[in-house]
Order: sequence, then structure tokens, then C-alpha cells
Amino acid sequence: MANQTQLDRTFAACAHPIRRGIIERLGTREMTVGEATGDFAVSKPSISKHLRVLEEAGAIVRVIDGRTHRLRLAEHGLADAQEWMSDQHAIWERKFDVLEDYLLARQRARGRAGDSTPAGGDAR
Amino acid sequence: MANQTQLDRTFAACAHPIRRGIIERLGTREMTVGEATGDFAVSKPSISKHLRVLEEAGAIVRVIDGRTHRLRLAEHGLADAQEWMSDQHAIWERKFDVLEDYLLARQRARGRAGDSTPAGGDAR
Repeated sequence: MANQTQLDRTFAACAHPIRRGIIERLGTREMTVGEATGDFAVSKPSISKHLRVLEEAGAIVRVIDGRTHRLRLAEHGLADAQEWMSDQHAIWERKFDVLEDYLLARQRARGRAGDSTPAGGDAR
Repeated sequence: MANQTQLDRTFAACAHPIRRGIIERLGTREMTVGEATGDFAVSKPSISKHLRVLEEAGAIVRVIDGRTHRLRLAEHGLADAQEWMSDQHAIWERKFDVLEDYLLARQRARGRAGDSTPAGGDAR
């Protein structure tokens, strides 16, 4: 089972558009900090804070190569959070499928009960 | 495309074990506030705060029936966040598949290059 603190951190890391943007960019390839964060219109300290949140959540990895810092996605960075989300979503979907089936059955039953309605009646 | 603020709220809502616990419970059925939150060892104001976060994120819906408050999952409550997570995860997986293919190809190429190794040699 996924560690709760780990899930807390991953979801919190995903709860900001800049951090999601960095994850999306790094999906294509490893990048320098400049490449991955260059066009966000926020201060450098703010970018550093976002990167720290992503690193502490285990979502990204920083490789320090002399004076160049490269960022890449961590191999199983989102795996547990993604699994939890998918599980909940599946349960959710199933729930509404059951509800839909029930409502359709109810509608059909009503349709049959209303078979005596004159033809051409309002189809409401 | 999913609204960024909405995604922020959904991910933040999922970033706490009590809130995830409430979502998990409501996956089974509609519940009173007491049923959904009864055995979390935290204060009532704290529970109220967690419920507010879930409601504001559109993850759960509160139905007020006289003096009874019932909670249920919102129909598309996690859908956008789940989709974003799955997209990233798929990109992530593909990335590592490509890497794996590359490493396997490299290993095979090295194996061929080492074909002159005496038979029965160490299979490292």
C-alpha cells in the first residue's frame, strides 16, 4: 500500500499549475532548470520553491553536473498517486453505471405502465 | 481542457489522508456526516474544515435533509485530475519503455561484440 505521507506530498506537488507545467515539460525529456522553468512569469526564488516541492515529493530528480542543474522525472514519481486516483475513479464510475442502469430500468418500467397513454401524446 | 484552478483544488483536496479516507468511504454509498467521518480521531471543527475543502473542490456534495446532512461523491468530482494524472503517467511510462528498449538494444549489441568470449565464460 502506498505510504500516506508520500501520497500527501505527491498530490500537494500536483496542486499548482507551475508544478504541473514543469512535470508536463519534463515528460518530453531531461532539461536544464532554465529550459524547464524559463517561461513561467515568476521570480527565481518562487521557481526554486516549486522545484523543492517536486523534489521532496519524489516527482523529479535533479542531476548536478558541474554548474549545470538538470531535471528529469523520477521513475515512479506519480505511480502511487495515479493508482489511488484510478482506483477511486473506477469505483466512482461503477457507482454511476449502477445508478444509470437503475434509472433506465425505472424509465422503462414507467414507459410500460404508461402504455395506455394516447398515441401522439407529449413525450415529456 | 481542465480548468487550472479546478485541478489545483482537486489535487489539494486529495493531499490529506482524512480527505482521501472520506472519498474512499463515500465510494461505497451515500452517508451521513457521522458515518463518513465518525472514526477519524480529530476534532469536529477539523472534520468540518476537511469537508469544506472537499466540497469546494467539487469532489463531494452535501445534501441537507432536515437536520441530517448526507454526503455523496460528486459525479465528475475527480475526472479532470484523474485524466491529467493518467496522461502524465502514460507519457512517463512510454519514456521509460523507450529507455528500456535502448538499454536492451545496447546490451544485445555488447553481447554480440563479446561473441568471441570463450564458451562457458561468466555470463555477467
